[in-house]
Amino acid sequence: MQHDLITIDSEAWDALAAAAADPSQPFRYLTLASLGRCQFPEARTVVLRSAKSATRVLEFHTDTRSPKWQELQDNGNTTILGYSDVLKLQLRLRGEIDLAPPGSPEADRVWSRLPPHTRATYQGGPPGDELPPEGAPAAHAPMSAPEETGRDRFGVLSFKALSLDWCRLERNNSLRARFSYGPSGELNGASWVSP
Amino acid sequence: MQHDLITIDSEAWDALAAAAADPSQPFRYLTLASLGRCQFPEARTVVLRSAKSATRVLEFHTDTRSPKWQELQDNGNTTILGYSDVLKLQLRLRGEIDLAPPGSPEADRVWSRLPPHTRATYQGGPPGDELPPEGAPAAHAPMSAPEETGRDRFGVLSFKALSLDWCRLERNNSLRARFSYGPSGELNGASWVSP
Repeated sequence: MQHDLITIDSEAWDALAAAAADPSQPFRYLTLASLGRCQFPEARTVVLRSAKSATRVLEFHTDTRSPKWQELQDNGNTTILGYSDVLKLQLRLRGEIDLAPPGSPEADRVWSRLPPHTRATYQGGPPGDELPPEGAPAAHAPMSAPEETGRDRFGVLSFKALSLDWCRLERNNSLRARFSYGPSGELNGASWVSP
Repeated sequence: MQHDLITIDSEAWDALAAAAADPSQPFRYLTLASLGRCQFPEARTVVLRSAKSATRVLEFHTDTRSPKWQELQDNGNTTILGYSDVLKLQLRLRGEIDLAPPGSPEADRVWSRLPPHTRATYQGGPPGDELPPEGAPAAHAPMSAPEETGRDRFGVLSFKALSLDWCRLERNNSLRARFSYGPSGELNGASWVSP
């Protein structure tokens, strides 16, 4: 395997790890694409919470009352897309999502480390539910429910990457490479592809 | 329909039009999610080329040798996602894609207005094709093919929005609203939803 390709793969995962640790870094906000109801392709922005290059696992948190929780239970096939306008870099990962539901050891472990303001985001109504037409914005104000209410709705999404499509845009000189990962996360394929 | 919701919808489409006109604006780079082969959800970054609020149509350009062209021919159901970290705003549009293939009046019309450096991006090998392992980056250098070569691979994607999910993130006070559009692009539904 070419040395420069190995370096590109390694730097891509370093960038993901940096984003998980620091909200100001590129790739903090990623797109999660999945299959919705009636086989409609869905996509939404998610916040990267953890990135482990050794196992090729990305972690996201979600309210389990959101449509995406149900969708991912039905079909865990997922594309994760990141684009940085600053770096002119696109990272496109294909893989599968595992769900850790409320009350599972994994969800409880993660919940126990969340700061209060993050826990509070799980105290509102079910995401996507229609609100009364008048005075609606006020209904978004912080709830007075006990902080622990959110625990019953808190789920962890673990995305296991099987491949990475890396693309750096540059006028007339873009570069693109594709990487594949084995079951333990080892890099087992890398090649340049036409951008 | 509430006045503030009508304003939010109108401002969202103004932002899309601004991005189509100016590469430095938020929402210039959007995610296009579609159904890939074997019903796998696919997502990639696309450049917004035009946004018409009257008809709710967004325009994108693509190399028709790319996998997404084939995928969208098979199934035009699409989610377009935009996220601006500066505005803390997510725009999530659902709709359908129409394809104008190479040689169609629409593709020819758009091609005739493209600057030479943009035309040049359609002169390389088929997007996603594997390149020889050695010296690959050099293979990405501009081709010496005549500029008009690209015309035979140039397609236009017209996305017609049926709904918009608008979400502004703010710590403990996020706002979210949903809009639906009629066949002529008229706003025919708007409501606040739980964020």
